[in-house]
Amino acid sequence: MHELDSLTQGRPIAIVGAGLVGAGWALVFARAGLAVRIYDANPAISNASIPLIERQIADLTEFGLLSESAESILARLTVCDTLQQAVNGAAYVQESILERTDVKRALMLELDAIAGPDLIIGSSTSGIPASAFASELSISSRVIIAHPVNPPYLVPVVEIVPSPDTSSSVIAFTAALMEAVGQSVVHVRKEVPGFVLNRLQAVLLREAWALVEEGVATCEDIDKTVRDGLGWRWSFMGPFETIDLNAVGGVADYAQRLGPLYRGIADSRSHTEEWSPELIKTVEDQRRGFLAFDELEKRRAWRDRQLMAFSAQRRKDDQR
Amino acid sequence: MHELDSLTQGRPIAIVGAGLVGAGWALVFARAGLAVRIYDANPAISNASIPLIERQIADLTEFGLLSESAESILARLTVCDTLQQAVNGAAYVQESILERTDVKRALMLELDAIAGPDLIIGSSTSGIPASAFASELSISSRVIIAHPVNPPYLVPVVEIVPSPDTSSSVIAFTAALMEAVGQSVVHVRKEVPGFVLNRLQAVLLREAWALVEEGVATCEDIDKTVRDGLGWRWSFMGPFETIDLNAVGGVADYAQRLGPLYRGIADSRSHTEEWSPELIKTVEDQRRGFLAFDELEKRRAWRDRQLMAFSAQRRKDDQR
Repeated sequence: MHELDSLTQGRPIAIVGAGLVGAGWALVFARAGLAVRIYDANPAISNASIPLIERQIADLTEFGLLSESAESILARLTVCDTLQQAVNGAAYVQESILERTDVKRALMLELDAIAGPDLIIGSSTSGIPASAFASELSISSRVIIAHPVNPPYLVPVVEIVPSPDTSSSVIAFTAALMEAVGQSVVHVRKEVPGFVLNRLQAVLLREAWALVEEGVATCEDIDKTVRDGLGWRWSFMGPFETIDLNAVGGVADYAQRLGPLYRGIADSRSHTEEWSPELIKTVEDQRRGFLAFDELEKRRAWRDRQLMAFSAQRRKDDQR
Repeated sequence: MHELDSLTQGRPIAIVGAGLVGAGWALVFARAGLAVRIYDANPAISNASIPLIERQIADLTEFGLLSESAESILARLTVCDTLQQAVNGAAYVQESILERTDVKRALMLELDAIAGPDLIIGSSTSGIPASAFASELSISSRVIIAHPVNPPYLVPVVEIVPSPDTSSSVIAFTAALMEAVGQSVVHVRKEVPGFVLNRLQAVLLREAWALVEEGVATCEDIDKTVRDGLGWRWSFMGPFETIDLNAVGGVADYAQRLGPLYRGIADSRSHTEEWSPELIKTVEDQRRGFLAFDELEKRRAWRDRQLMAFSAQRRKDDQR
């Protein structure tokens, strides 16, 4: 808390865009003890965010993941009628509006007109680089990507991606703020499509779809390969630590022995074609065979409970 | 147990090659109640396998992962002096010898000479297809790949990969045996390099190394992206279920919206170059910065305890 106070100097956090992602961020900051102002251009979404956060808090409480009452967390949230109200005096804005370059640019122009001289602006975008919507403004050096995984109050990773305009003090502030509110910071040092997280997901998914297309394995068998195999280690070590421990001589030993095989595998696969309508139908049919369309919502609730159980377990592991 | 009895008709399982992988398999079968015969061409390895399994049993007991005493499991193990002794009357051989085509071929020739007419032979190879070492023999239709993740008594996935010679009854038997002893069976329907598991790992690792090479992120930040982000969902859902739940309209909706981005990412990356000595040194230096070389062994023990804790938790989740 002490570190947070010195970072924000007691000033609030503004949440701009109050859908699922924005509401999740509001809970992250409020849970950490910060005053949070919530604004969405659509008042219906602003107003819906509080009951949404109440449900999220109830879930976290059930899994023993909160150290204080719902009331004290909710008391830190204020819904604002205007963008000006939300950002006035704020230390940091977390922007989670529509994933479109023109929409984000329009918000940056608005913020440029009203932002105080030291307001720092983080964007939740999962793939649009800041240089595509935040350049040539007085705020340009204070805009940075802070890309979460949903929901950010459960899954801790956040990708911090500066644009070439972003100042090093803004990078340092944002990373320190995120660590102080409990996130796990990944520094992405260059603007690349998909940043790190979605690049890793992209190559794995493309291979997975290609294996289905070739009839090598079904979706369900590929899912099993990950959830009953690869995913176990990856849930507490990353891929580098995994291979570092998997060879007597560590990662260099592993690279020399398995590098050529992996190069051959990766190089043998091209990804120039779209997923065809037939392939999409194959995957869709296989998935619907396992889970009917009208069961998706129930399964999403199951996933969220699994993530909460995982989070509770991780906390115990970290205390060991 | 009933199903196991009808599968094996009370006949033992033979373990050929009694290193880390073979010993792990011995425990899988013995834990399930089957008599297990252990053989290694090197008697020192055969003899070392029993104390190794004793330590594995002690670990599992500590984490509450066994339902009977060490003694009753160990009583099912017999170390054999010859291959003949090990396979005589056995229902199934699990081969875990050196990962080299000529060495595996030599074993197949030996087995061809002594195997009973219905002996089924599974190979633990992580990447050599059965057709490369088991063709044109009387046993050819009874040889199949059963590729585990280490250690198989903890991580349940096993890839079942027939060669074009493998009969459908042998596929069915091996899959049923593996399920009956508690493994999670992935059917790989065609012989492809790396099967499914190592293909998925290969493409993710190649992208990870390329990101380090380009200075986009450090090893540690890439590891964080997975262990504090992507890996959470992948540890209880696979990649297909993950995306199926991540779009309102399910997997087809997801494919239409994010397919083009993922294609662009995967297609932009070529993997024709080897990992250079400089790159390997960069990764090695970064890893050794986090974990000194002489700490590797201690960290492996930590990993194994994490896997046991994960296994114990998974068991609880499955019972919910």
